[in-house]
Amino acid sequence: MSQETEKSEVTAAILIIGDEILSGRTKDKNIGAIADVLTEIGIDLREVRIVPDVMDEIVAAVNALRARYTYLFTSGGIGPTHDDITADSVAKAFGVGINVDERARAMLLERHRPEDLNEARLRMARIPFGADLIANPISKAPGFRIGNVHVMAGVPQIMNAMLDEIRPTLTSNAPVISETIEAGAIPEGNFAGALGTLAAAHAGVSIGSYPSMTAEGFRNRIVVRGREAEAVAAARAAIEAMLEPLRS
Amino acid sequence: MSQETEKSEVTAAILIIGDEILSGRTKDKNIGAIADVLTEIGIDLREVRIVPDVMDEIVAAVNALRARYTYLFTSGGIGPTHDDITADSVAKAFGVGINVDERARAMLLERHRPEDLNEARLRMARIPFGADLIANPISKAPGFRIGNVHVMAGVPQIMNAMLDEIRPTLTSNAPVISETIEAGAIPEGNFAGALGTLAAAHAGVSIGSYPSMTAEGFRNRIVVRGREAEAVAAARAAIEAMLEPLRS
Repeated sequence: MSQETEKSEVTAAILIIGDEILSGRTKDKNIGAIADVLTEIGIDLREVRIVPDVMDEIVAAVNALRARYTYLFTSGGIGPTHDDITADSVAKAFGVGINVDERARAMLLERHRPEDLNEARLRMARIPFGADLIANPISKAPGFRIGNVHVMAGVPQIMNAMLDEIRPTLTSNAPVISETIEAGAIPEGNFAGALGTLAAAHAGVSIGSYPSMTAEGFRNRIVVRGREAEAVAAARAAIEAMLEPLRS
Repeated sequence: MSQETEKSEVTAAILIIGDEILSGRTKDKNIGAIADVLTEIGIDLREVRIVPDVMDEIVAAVNALRARYTYLFTSGGIGPTHDDITADSVAKAFGVGINVDERARAMLLERHRPEDLNEARLRMARIPFGADLIANPISKAPGFRIGNVHVMAGVPQIMNAMLDEIRPTLTSNAPVISETIEAGAIPEGNFAGALGTLAAAHAGVSIGSYPSMTAEGFRNRIVVRGREAEAVAAARAAIEAMLEPLRS
């Protein structure tokens, strides 16, 4: 694969780990937050999975996703309690050992007195062999990176802080330019045929149509996404021209 | 598999389809809404995936998830535009044909005049052969059920209305009873060891510990989930007793 091709294909997946998301008890906020950051820096998010706190499920998902995409970002399951099994699962996925990491222990000691660093808290210093740590400025217990997998906390504030740490280290594509055209109350069915033809003619960009329901009824937006400013502008102009006669 | 075993193992997966979720442009609300309904009626949600508007990805995810769980619920990609390819993808996953369905066309005619039922809008009446329709009381274009796969709209209001239609048709387990114990400001690391021991002793229930960050610092909640009221109550009592000496 040439450098050029590789550069144009930086991809990512997200793996959210936690029974509390699957039960509906906690509503996920991390998918959207990571997606926003990846879009901003120009990495294509291609897949998301949510799995329970079950080691075999985590191992299988980590291995499927790390093999397929440039980066995998996980969130959840790195706290001190018995259901926090992400670090052990990632070690198993990579086939490496895991133990209390002295660098991680030192980070925990910035927050806890030595006599409070009990067995449970030391679970948070268990890091797979060969991993780099990801600093946690909020509660100190670190995340880690091993291979192309970034393991982050589930609490959104900590996850976001870890993502800020990781961000400068990521290779990215040219950022995606996104333009939104408000179709307003024009029914989607009135422009869908023409939009399909137009999308086929502007293959260098991706064009999506997104309805939403408001108190006044359906409203539609068309979004053009692409990495080349001229191609995005050309598609946008074509869509505006197509919509113009449909606006009442 | 005995009827009893089967009854205790009603499981589900969710597949969200759409580039707009992966780009971060639209923040998903459907995962949490479906998760809440499934928990309420006693179906175990075991996995969620989000994939782009790419036929091969949708087909692969539909086939992986429908083979593994009792039910699969999909959301997104059934509108009139060129990027709405869910129905065709599901037909391909099942290896069946697809065409305009006369029942679906009749539903669309409840909302659109015959002269407005253009080719694009008729895309919304394309239903895989052998599928049952799921009524859409809001904008009429139906979802459908084929095998154990329920195909629903992406717009949350419509998705929720379709879920209400589907709900009485689902087989469910005994509902899960969920009890929340507020650990308040007790640090998770102070009870994590004891909680792990306690979780091992109460294997009939699932016990999770969930930290959240508030303006006053971390707050922790412990949640006990299970199908047997006595087992849940016993675990709850044990957790309360364990926490009591730690409360200041």
